[in-house]
Amino acid sequence: MQVPEITQTLLDAKKNKKLSFGDLEKILGRDEVWIAAVIYRQASASEEEANKLVAALDVNPVYAKELTESPLKGLGPVVPTDPLIYRFYEIMQVYGMPIKSVIHEKFGDGIMSAIDFTLDVEKEEDPKGDRVKVIMSGKFLPYKKW
Amino acid sequence: MQVPEITQTLLDAKKNKKLSFGDLEKILGRDEVWIAAVIYRQASASEEEANKLVAALDVNPVYAKELTESPLKGLGPVVPTDPLIYRFYEIMQVYGMPIKSVIHEKFGDGIMSAIDFTLDVEKEEDPKGDRVKVIMSGKFLPYKKW
Amino acid sequence: MQVPEITQTLLDAKKNKKLSFGDLEKILGRDEVWIAAVIYRQASASEEEANKLVAALDVNPVYAKELTESPLKGLGPVVPTDPLIYRFYEIMQVYGMPIKSVIHEKFGDGIMSAIDFTLDVEKEEDPKGDRVKVIMSGKFLPYKKW
Amino acid sequence: MQVPEITQTLLDAKKNKKLSFGDLEKILGRDEVWIAAVIYRQASASEEEANKLVAALDVNPVYAKELTESPLKGLGPVVPTDPLIYRFYEIMQVYGMPIKSVIHEKFGDGIMSAIDFTLDVEKEEDPKGDRVKVIMSGKFLPYKKW
Amino acid sequence: MQVPEITQTLLDAKKNKKLSFGDLEKILGRDEVWIAAVIYRQASASEEEANKLVAALDVNPVYAKELTESPLKGLGPVVPTDPLIYRFYEIMQVYGMPIKSVIHEKFGDGIMSAIDFTLDVEKEEDPKGDRVKVIMSGKFLPYKKW
Amino acid sequence: MQVPEITQTLLDAKKNKKLSFGDLEKILGRDEVWIAAVIYRQASASEEEANKLVAALDVNPVYAKELTESPLKGLGPVVPTDPLIYRFYEIMQVYGMPIKSVIHEKFGDGIMSAIDFTLDVEKEEDPKGDRVKVIMSGKFLPYKKW
Amino acid sequence: MQVPEITQTLLDAKKNKKLSFGDLEKILGRDEVWIAAVIYRQASASEEEANKLVAALDVNPVYAKELTESPLKGLGPVVPTDPLIYRFYEIMQVYGMPIKSVIHEKFGDGIMSAIDFTLDVEKEEDPKGDRVKVIMSGKFLPYKKW
Amino acid sequence: MQVPEITQTLLDAKKNKKLSFGDLEKILGRDEVWIAAVIYRQASASEEEANKLVAALDVNPVYAKELTESPLKGLGPVVPTDPLIYRFYEIMQVYGMPIKSVIHEKFGDGIMSAIDFTLDVEKEEDPKGDRVKVIMSGKFLPYKKW
Amino acid sequence: MQVPEITQTLLDAKKNKKLSFGDLEKILGRDEVWIAAVIYRQASASEEEANKLVAALDVNPVYAKELTESPLKGLGPVVPTDPLIYRFYEIMQVYGMPIKSVIHEKFGDGIMSAIDFTLDVEKEEDPKGDRVKVIMSGKFLPYKKW
Amino acid sequence: MQVPEITQTLLDAKKNKKLSFGDLEKILGRDEVWIAAVIYRQASASEEEANKLVAALDVNPVYAKELTESPLKGLGPVVPTDPLIYRFYEIMQVYGMPIKSVIHEKFGDGIMSAIDFTLDVEKEEDPKGDRVKVIMSGKFLPYKKW
Repeated sequence: MQVPEITQTLLDAKKNKKLSFGDLEKILGRDEVWIAAVIYRQASASEEEANKLVAALDVNPVYAKELTESPLKGLGPVVPTDPLIYRFYEIMQVYGMPIKSVIHEKFGDGIMSAIDFTLDVEKEEDPKGDRVKVIMSGKFLPYKKW
Repeated sequence: MQVPEITQTLLDAKKNKKLSFGDLEKILGRDEVWIAAVIYRQASASEEEANKLVAALDVNPVYAKELTESPLKGLGPVVPTDPLIYRFYEIMQVYGMPIKSVIHEKFGDGIMSAIDFTLDVEKEEDPKGDRVKVIMSGKFLPYKKW
Repeated sequence: MQVPEITQTLLDAKKNKKLSFGDLEKILGRDEVWIAAVIYRQASASEEEANKLVAALDVNPVYAKELTESPLKGLGPVVPTDPLIYRFYEIMQVYGMPIKSVIHEKFGDGIMSAIDFTLDVEKEEDPKGDRVKVIMSGKFLPYKKW
Repeated sequence: MQVPEITQTLLDAKKNKKLSFGDLEKILGRDEVWIAAVIYRQASASEEEANKLVAALDVNPVYAKELTESPLKGLGPVVPTDPLIYRFYEIMQVYGMPIKSVIHEKFGDGIMSAIDFTLDVEKEEDPKGDRVKVIMSGKFLPYKKW
Repeated sequence: MQVPEITQTLLDAKKNKKLSFGDLEKILGRDEVWIAAVIYRQASASEEEANKLVAALDVNPVYAKELTESPLKGLGPVVPTDPLIYRFYEIMQVYGMPIKSVIHEKFGDGIMSAIDFTLDVEKEEDPKGDRVKVIMSGKFLPYKKW
Repeated sequence: MQVPEITQTLLDAKKNKKLSFGDLEKILGRDEVWIAAVIYRQASASEEEANKLVAALDVNPVYAKELTESPLKGLGPVVPTDPLIYRFYEIMQVYGMPIKSVIHEKFGDGIMSAIDFTLDVEKEEDPKGDRVKVIMSGKFLPYKKW
Repeated sequence: MQVPEITQTLLDAKKNKKLSFGDLEKILGRDEVWIAAVIYRQASASEEEANKLVAALDVNPVYAKELTESPLKGLGPVVPTDPLIYRFYEIMQVYGMPIKSVIHEKFGDGIMSAIDFTLDVEKEEDPKGDRVKVIMSGKFLPYKKW
Repeated sequence: MQVPEITQTLLDAKKNKKLSFGDLEKILGRDEVWIAAVIYRQASASEEEANKLVAALDVNPVYAKELTESPLKGLGPVVPTDPLIYRFYEIMQVYGMPIKSVIHEKFGDGIMSAIDFTLDVEKEEDPKGDRVKVIMSGKFLPYKKW
Repeated sequence: MQVPEITQTLLDAKKNKKLSFGDLEKILGRDEVWIAAVIYRQASASEEEANKLVAALDVNPVYAKELTESPLKGLGPVVPTDPLIYRFYEIMQVYGMPIKSVIHEKFGDGIMSAIDFTLDVEKEEDPKGDRVKVIMSGKFLPYKKW
Repeated sequence: MQVPEITQTLLDAKKNKKLSFGDLEKILGRDEVWIAAVIYRQASASEEEANKLVAALDVNPVYAKELTESPLKGLGPVVPTDPLIYRFYEIMQVYGMPIKSVIHEKFGDGIMSAIDFTLDVEKEEDPKGDRVKVIMSGKFLPYKKW
């Protein structure tokens, strides 16, 4: 995956300014994962958010406009080879049917929205080894009948 | 996806006995998603757990042995067509790079384990529409150097 | 695509009873496309709807229960070879980007839901050749920020 | 998907001139989706239409000629990853067989043309959330026998 | 490719009765390729044609009904391995762009219909080796503008 | 598909000189489809033919040499997305087996050559809509036994 | 790859009668590889050859007829996983371009026929380890111009 | 397939010097196919061979070093579209199983090496049309047991 | 992956007789991984080995013959979904190039044989968590020049 | 596979300085395979390791920073065509199920980690031909139940 030029520019600026995503979270008042999604051009910011981000990273303000546009989303390779990203593919392969069964039992026929959706990444400290906690919350959308 | 014969048998028994995955959670003392994974042959039970499950569902006890075996795991189709399961593929496509960046920043180079891993599905009641909450917790595994 | 046994049974019964999808629409009070989706196991009916359908087609009432379940959805082949179905794939290939641009301009960043969604097929009589009219209506879902 | 250089130029000009697709619809007397298809090089304009478009966007008139050519059409990725575009793929996967059955019942063996075809995108205001309405109208083409 | 049971039955009957496709052409008054397409369930016959075919092959008349239905069409494998069929794939790969250019130059933007379409196979005797002549005739469909 | 630089140069020259493929056919004494195949680098010309073509199009004579080389042939995408080219894929999918059966019956086991092969595109004027006629003629090659 | 029932039957009979492909070569007067191709339904025999083969293997004579038919050819998986067969895929991947260059230099633009083609497998005894010798001989087919 | 820059340079030099692969065979004392493989970066030369080749083609001596490196081998597209190269894919598809059976019968379980391997291309003159003879010789490698 | 009937029979017998692969290793005098490969029909046994195995598992002696045949090898899915097997795919994706570089540096241009090859699986006890040790040993095969 | 610019730079420097991976192993105190993985951007170094490596290779120190980042890992092509790398794919295809069975028997349900993992490549001198020894050691990760 070739990241777009704007993404590379913002990531380089972020590194040079030694800002973490958590720092940007405080500056923008938005979750760090969402901000990373904006930078990777998977989400679009409001003008105000884009301006704040561009100012915080101290890059050319012309980038702000591009960050407000609705990007063509997605990673690319059908099955990702990067081990960290692949694990999410594996979770879908292994736990897809069990999750489907449990959601249908609890909610009926429908899906968890990936649009009216939030995703948080947290660090759980644990003496046996820290844990990555990923919390997804998506609106349940029941199938409409007509 | 053709579910294996044992899965169909257990799901039919569960329906006939009007047991929810939540009921099975109480009986087995294991999370409902994990129990569903055992039934879909994506996870293996201990002998004791298998016997309890088979007894609760009142099916032929010979099924218990099969539930203790390490199954060949995975759903099958490279890109799933079922909308509920696809949304998890989409989350990986859209948020894969942002998650990767945030995890590396918080933890260093490594991955979230999908083996030393738990997954819960919860219902969040919400007047604007209930929400599906999926909580994943996987041990962070740093890349070993040698 | 091998249609499931229940689908074949219902389609055979429908043919033997010389009922059109339009006739079933009148009997069930649901759109004919949705009813066809239930029969092809792409949508799930309520118990009442399932009973009505099974009665109208005069098939074994045990089928009703199966029609209320949330099916594993999707057609299967990645690129469909059937010419009628392929044309919808082609429309997505050719008009996907133009539709995306127009929807974003009218609504902002988000999608047309395929769940809170209806689809009608109408016949437009035309002396130069009748036309197929397909009307899709899906709720606009704006991307949530968090 | 890398959009061609001409597409990027026209989209940039459109943004700078703050023209919506709806504005272009009024200027050209053609539907906004079709105009977007011309800009994305999925449809070809007449010389007159191309000249009008180039004039409206105030770009170099040499672009007009290119807009009259028959482009090599299509989006590219076999299964699109962009969520908005994917939903149309999903509709084909889930509702493909039901639509096929209903069209054959209403029209006989044949297809809906994707060439003698129009597509409109409308905004339906709705207090429960606005809806995207997509209206497709394609000539029914019966299979010729010989 | 597993041919459907009805296809195998009709081909076996045809062989037992020592009827060629050319013989069937005379009996049905339809081209032999189209008749082969009906037998392979790629085309649908009228009731009268189906009855004639079933009578000519002397098979169970219940097959006639199935021959009138609109089949799910297509061969299956994305790139066919059979050398005879593959050559048509190769022709598309090698001559696809040249044909596209010549058709657009002669007709404008549009396509050759594969629905309002006929296909003949003829044997051209030639002392240097007989030749297979395949004649396709499809209605030109110009892209509609709207 | 990115056409090679030489192809783009020759097509641009052809457009500037307002020469049709039919005009080139008269100049070279070769069929227009074959000439298009040379330009798209799917066929190789003799030195004389290459010189004539380069002269007719008035481009740098160095291009002539390249036109005499045996190119690496093929279009690229496994299933083409361009609607005009796709129709030839569809014809292979739908009529592949019927054509195979008819050719084997007429000729025995073997194939239609795609090398000792010609392809013509003709315009059939028709009041109900002009038709594209594609005539393929390939030597029948019987399987050799050994 | 599931071998067809007739193949399995003939291979079992061959093993029971302890006949090698070399023995069959002597009985039929045809090369052992071609005979293996007939048995695997990749080549078609004459009636006389089929009768001889069926008699030699002492199987039900009804199989003879099937051996004279033109089979749907090919192995199936796009990239074969069997190591012996894969090596031929690898040879094509590694030596494809060099072979192409040398053939074009020696013969001009065209191909080696895979139809007017023979293939022998020989054992070369060698103290450093026996060698497999595969000799392919295919008619050169020059591209026809038209 | 984009050939690497070094390949293009050497092929251009070879053409300018009007050297055939056969001429290079005499100069280097290596088979022309192997030399072509070196030029296409599918095989690695010794320093001495590389120097001779670079001298014969009269190109910058810095290229010699690159020719001694172990290249990343392979053509690229999973199923090649070039007709000459495809025929080798087809031979594997059609004759793969027969060859496997004959080799196992003659040699036992194992494979023909594609590494301890030579490949010659010869021209067989024939009044009915010259033939391409491809002779492969690979060491038989029996499966080791342990 | 559907394991063949013989594999299932042998695995069931092994479980009923409570024999581990390690037990079979002692009985046959062959490594447990190789024995598992024979049972999964990825390797072929001698008659003597097959008889011993069949006797140890106390199954019908007719299975012995099948175990001596050269199987069509391979797992099937292009990218395996089972997490344990996938990790070996991941190792190839991540460490493929580094291994290639190191092997070429140590041995020259060539490969590690997967035929003249052994593979052991050992358990390394470790207080921080036991480790799986996989030892592969394959003959280095230098590329032959010719 | 196009190696990234930094990889090419480091490999060129390593060749110019005539340093082997084994030499780098001594300088860095890390295994040569791991160092190669850092150079191919499949592993990330500490600042200290990166500085040492950059100094040893005598390249611009700015490269050190890039070597400490967590790269997007993986080779790319789904099935690698390079023969050396392919053999590891083949080992997974052929021995995947046997390894899975033996590991589950020895360790229970779980996997060999590819993250808490080391890989060594050794040369085993052998009069019958040197052997490549690859030793993998990965922590066994049992499936967590919850």
